[in-house]
Amino acid sequence: MEFIKNSLGRSVPKSANGKKLKPFLGAYHNNGGGNRSAPVIPVSKPERITKQDKICKSLKEVIEKSNIKNGSTISFHHHLRNGDFLVNKVIDQCAEMGFKDLVLIPSALFPVHAELIRYIESGVIKRIEGSMNGPLGKFVSEGGMLPSIPILRSHGGRVRAIEDGDIKIDAAFIAAPTADKYGNAYGAIGKSACGPLSYSHIDSIYADKVVVVTDNLVEYPCIPFSIPASHVDFVIVIDSIGDQSKIVSGTTKITTSPTRLLIAKYAVEFIKNTSFFKEGFSFQTGAGGISLAVTKYMAEMMKEEKITASFITGGITKYAVDMLHEGLVKS
Amino acid sequence: MEFIKNSLGRSVPKSANGKKLKPFLGAYHNNGGGNRSAPVIPVSKPERITKQDKICKSLKEVIEKSNIKNGSTISFHHHLRNGDFLVNKVIDQCAEMGFKDLVLIPSALFPVHAELIRYIESGVIKRIEGSMNGPLGKFVSEGGMLPSIPILRSHGGRVRAIEDGDIKIDAAFIAAPTADKYGNAYGAIGKSACGPLSYSHIDSIYADKVVVVTDNLVEYPCIPFSIPASHVDFVIVIDSIGDQSKIVSGTTKITTSPTRLLIAKYAVEFIKNTSFFKEGFSFQTGAGGISLAVTKYMAEMMKEEKITASFITGGITKYAVDMLHEGLVKS
Repeated sequence: MEFIKNSLGRSVPKSANGKKLKPFLGAYHNNGGGNRSAPVIPVSKPERITKQDKICKSLKEVIEKSNIKNGSTISFHHHLRNGDFLVNKVIDQCAEMGFKDLVLIPSALFPVHAELIRYIESGVIKRIEGSMNGPLGKFVSEGGMLPSIPILRSHGGRVRAIEDGDIKIDAAFIAAPTADKYGNAYGAIGKSACGPLSYSHIDSIYADKVVVVTDNLVEYPCIPFSIPASHVDFVIVIDSIGDQSKIVSGTTKITTSPTRLLIAKYAVEFIKNTSFFKEGFSFQTGAGGISLAVTKYMAEMMKEEKITASFITGGITKYAVDMLHEGLVKS
Repeated sequence: MEFIKNSLGRSVPKSANGKKLKPFLGAYHNNGGGNRSAPVIPVSKPERITKQDKICKSLKEVIEKSNIKNGSTISFHHHLRNGDFLVNKVIDQCAEMGFKDLVLIPSALFPVHAELIRYIESGVIKRIEGSMNGPLGKFVSEGGMLPSIPILRSHGGRVRAIEDGDIKIDAAFIAAPTADKYGNAYGAIGKSACGPLSYSHIDSIYADKVVVVTDNLVEYPCIPFSIPASHVDFVIVIDSIGDQSKIVSGTTKITTSPTRLLIAKYAVEFIKNTSFFKEGFSFQTGAGGISLAVTKYMAEMMKEEKITASFITGGITKYAVDMLHEGLVKS
């Protein structure tokens, strides 16, 4: 592996998985300009002409219709977190169909996805690009995916990579707590309600094929919707897309580890001592254990210092909502 | 001008304004596929680095910064309809700055924009592509824009043309009833509230420069927003973007002309006799005089026939909202 120095003097790989990488060149080196990647125009014929709707009867059928092949790139969202059933189901089916060398682009994976380890070992999965928590993360950190290099993409960085064409998704599978037969999908209602479906929105624009998987098919039109039917190629109804009660688990609980709490304390102290901590400031924290502690400490510090924020952004969790209700943040 | 026969046997021009045209090839000839045009990546540096925010002091400054030149293509929305002040103001300023051959891509123009006629005559405006109502429409229909060929684009066709790259917009001007200094913009509140800003959304994605013009600058962040700050290059505050009371006027009043009412009657009878008129159907009507009459007659017919619609889409007006409240449409 060849290395190059980035603007901070750190040696970073020149390429990974056959793709040239751009070393970090400074926070304000790239100010935009140019164009994003060109979005896909979905192929669609009216039902009354084709006598076919978007509904597929089985995962097998939808995988065939999505043109998944050896080496295909498949994406998922993680709004159901450790309660997600879909990733394992789709990969089980792909394995049964004999596919190899799949590249997975989940926004994140959790302990429930530990069973993917055996598919990495058997060659069904070649690589994963996305957050990997739990046993899978450990396995990959210890070199389990080599010679393919796993890439931990931040959630925002994942969107950037898709928009820029660094990642080309062949098929996006969207677990949808509510959907209609044309694929309008919504996340905040249904027995498996998970809130937003925002991580999949960019996939729905750029993936070659978009599959909405729901356990709550409602009458058309599903309104409101987060994913519009015009982005969706196929719809499939399964018994259950996940276990809602496991959304809050592990990584979404405030940490109890003294070391991690100390990290959170230091982070908040650092924020306090920057010039940015002033009336009307804004901040973002994730939904992980340390981040949640940061949010909680931020609230305490803001109350003490009598400073309110203009907005905060998420992972929006109970701690963030509490701050809104207490008037510590405006939106 | 050379002509070609379309699939309906009608002779249509082979090209207009130097661009090759595609003749209509049948309703289901083009089922999608391929890619849309590649959206622009806005150029943006943080305020604390540049010591400059997006706020411009005058229309002159914003026009200069938007790189408007002779022949530039400029776009507007028509949510303020006959109460819009922005189009005339921007073109007045462009004329004062000596620009020629501008191409205007409004979603629609109204009698209030009749003063653009003199700018067509003096060469400031070369062409308009969009709906043209009132004196301007009459002037153009009678050949006033020749040799340039005006193009009446439907609202949906306009979006398609922008997404496909048939139209390249140099600068989009978005009249925003509410906005913040970064350009997050919203249409449903403010003294000039006009409802949605949806016609400008596609412009905000594809235009080289995006200018939000508001008469109600609110504290950051403007939430909710329809146009996100990330699409916006410049913001300018003016006294008034329009006269809200003139939104409902002329083309948004139900027609009283017996001929037009008869057209509406025929349209509704036609709908009744198609196979589509059945429980759970859906329809779209515009906000023009005849369309409004159609909506009203549809409501009467649906009540008589005891048929309800799954959804209707707009121009959403009082008549459509009444149908929702009466339970004649679900959404």
